[in-house]
Amino acid sequence: MLILFNRLLGNQSYDFLAIVSLMTASQTNRFKLLKTNGKARRGVLTLKHGVVQTPIFMPVGTVGSVKTLTPADLKDLDAQIILGNTYHLFLRPGVEVLSHFKGLHNFIKWDRPILTDSGGFQIFSLGKLNKLTEDGAHFASHLDGAKFVLTPELAVNIQEIIGSDIHMVLDECTSYPCDVATAKASMERSMRWAKRCRDAKTNSELCQFGIVQGGMYPELRRESLRQLIEIGFEGYAVGGLSVGESKEHMHEITEVCCDLLPVDQPRYLMGVGTPLDIVEGVSRGIDMFDCVMPTRNGRNGTLFTSEGRVNIKNLQYRLDDAPLDAACSCYTCNTFTRGYLRHLFLAGEITGLRLLSLHNIAYYLQLAKDIRLAIENEVFDAFLKHHQQLWTK
Amino acid sequence: MLILFNRLLGNQSYDFLAIVSLMTASQTNRFKLLKTNGKARRGVLTLKHGVVQTPIFMPVGTVGSVKTLTPADLKDLDAQIILGNTYHLFLRPGVEVLSHFKGLHNFIKWDRPILTDSGGFQIFSLGKLNKLTEDGAHFASHLDGAKFVLTPELAVNIQEIIGSDIHMVLDECTSYPCDVATAKASMERSMRWAKRCRDAKTNSELCQFGIVQGGMYPELRRESLRQLIEIGFEGYAVGGLSVGESKEHMHEITEVCCDLLPVDQPRYLMGVGTPLDIVEGVSRGIDMFDCVMPTRNGRNGTLFTSEGRVNIKNLQYRLDDAPLDAACSCYTCNTFTRGYLRHLFLAGEITGLRLLSLHNIAYYLQLAKDIRLAIENEVFDAFLKHHQQLWTK
Repeated sequence: MLILFNRLLGNQSYDFLAIVSLMTASQTNRFKLLKTNGKARRGVLTLKHGVVQTPIFMPVGTVGSVKTLTPADLKDLDAQIILGNTYHLFLRPGVEVLSHFKGLHNFIKWDRPILTDSGGFQIFSLGKLNKLTEDGAHFASHLDGAKFVLTPELAVNIQEIIGSDIHMVLDECTSYPCDVATAKASMERSMRWAKRCRDAKTNSELCQFGIVQGGMYPELRRESLRQLIEIGFEGYAVGGLSVGESKEHMHEITEVCCDLLPVDQPRYLMGVGTPLDIVEGVSRGIDMFDCVMPTRNGRNGTLFTSEGRVNIKNLQYRLDDAPLDAACSCYTCNTFTRGYLRHLFLAGEITGLRLLSLHNIAYYLQLAKDIRLAIENEVFDAFLKHHQQLWTK
Repeated sequence: MLILFNRLLGNQSYDFLAIVSLMTASQTNRFKLLKTNGKARRGVLTLKHGVVQTPIFMPVGTVGSVKTLTPADLKDLDAQIILGNTYHLFLRPGVEVLSHFKGLHNFIKWDRPILTDSGGFQIFSLGKLNKLTEDGAHFASHLDGAKFVLTPELAVNIQEIIGSDIHMVLDECTSYPCDVATAKASMERSMRWAKRCRDAKTNSELCQFGIVQGGMYPELRRESLRQLIEIGFEGYAVGGLSVGESKEHMHEITEVCCDLLPVDQPRYLMGVGTPLDIVEGVSRGIDMFDCVMPTRNGRNGTLFTSEGRVNIKNLQYRLDDAPLDAACSCYTCNTFTRGYLRHLFLAGEITGLRLLSLHNIAYYLQLAKDIRLAIENEVFDAFLKHHQQLWTK
């Protein structure tokens, strides 16, 4: 047993909480840590609908499709797991339709893993929260104003109907900036909700992740984490980041959490971020990421490439015969010139939005692959430095 | 030579003009009539970028993409030839970009045949015509108001830069309704322009089609046709239809033209139309069709299926597990349910617009295939009756 600890802990510092968690969760552990390089972790996560190699980026399929793409496109790009948003899916198509079609996988014809958020973040970020009580979040639909109360129990119930391989607990995304008393009260309610979510879980095939809150206060984050580990989940997410704080703050809080999170369970940094944010997150011990950035920026004409950002609208690309990213092997880069992609974008052609989104998702998925390779080859530190230079030049 | 006439003419009535044309054009003829069934014709057209089996439907790629689709999608659907709009391409990306990229094929990465219209129809239909003179059409760009004069010579010059396998003469699309004197003057100018276009043609690898005008007046149509045949083109189009006239009028004028058109050259009914319009057109001797209907209707949620029209927005499809068209083998029908397609459409997802457009183009291309098969098997009359019943039920 001690040998196992040593292997799993790798060269990380010995941590009492991590080992307690390892002991309680070992029977149902779906995550295997294969290797570490510094704090960066190379792992594999076995879910109901398949295996996910970590670190991983998860494309966001908000309302039942990764915008502009099809499941066939995503498989061509070797996407391993995608995200669905419970808030959006709850409103449209709604629970009756999702039940009828036996869950989201069958409805959207995606047979690989899916992760869903709880819906809480959208209620806050879309500004439709009417009232927050101990019971749950009272909100109005952004589509037609219909009123609902999302309780922790309902959030779990909906996500079990969706059938996502991983679902998230309902939490309150603490506003930013926020004084310590408010952040504490908010975190404590999130922890009570986390417990109610765990109690509401009925399907042992599906994983449930707890979410660490506590704003920008390390001590609150540690307290949140202790409570979550005591409840026990199949994985842990760092929530409430990328909400307006500085990058330094984001890194600091990520580090605080990672240093206390169980080494033998997956760690997910929610809603993050740019390519550099992802590499920085991995360097602090994060395994999973999601962000709308590749698809949203693709639709806005901003592309991520091996040579940095490209704004395809720029006049300099008008007569450019080169591919968008010579280092990329996606259909867009294999087939078309920057000149044509610029033309499609300026003409408002849907085909352009699709080709640009396709490349950006390809870029993010390739980035995750390259990260895994860098860890395996123990060159992650150089990899991190390369990206720090590339994205801040 | 007489044997050749008999084979080419099939069971059509002997026609002096047709034979004159056959004699004058035989050296450069790229069209081969393989079989007739009634007036319906099965042929093959050899163009610079490949061979086209007729009757054929040509998807419209207005501004350098068939809306929502990629060249790979179109090849999967077995599209043989697509259309580009000279007016749109002239304004954006413009002649300098098209020259730099050595023509439209290389710019959009489509290596099969392309047909372009002359730009005249868009100048009239987009309401940006300022003045029509003997010289050409004076118009303002619908994008930025910039002023241009499109002459017959410029229309040919631009299309030769585009490098389309088939380009169209510049003509005036006679308004509807229109008195006989106006229609006659308009037609006569179009014929003078047709001659100027022929004289301006420089690239013998590319085909140029004349366009029959003359409004709803059979005698004007016949006169237009005689003049075009005297000039001599690689093919002939019936223009100025589908502009508000009754279906009976459209059929009558199509028939008038087909009865006089050279049997050994391709006939193109411009901008037509619904699936039934196409089958009716073939029954009168038309070989080629184009229309924005499959892509535009796809983006509006109206689908063409083997069982008739489907409005995917309808509530009846909410829990529908069936494919959009069980008889269709496209990716959309092979993969997704009507319930999911309805959801994507209502949620405004681009993926939905793409999947629906993909099916509609698949339907139109399969319709053309079925037409060819019906002619080969000499059952076109029954095929026509089936579609008359299907689309008027």
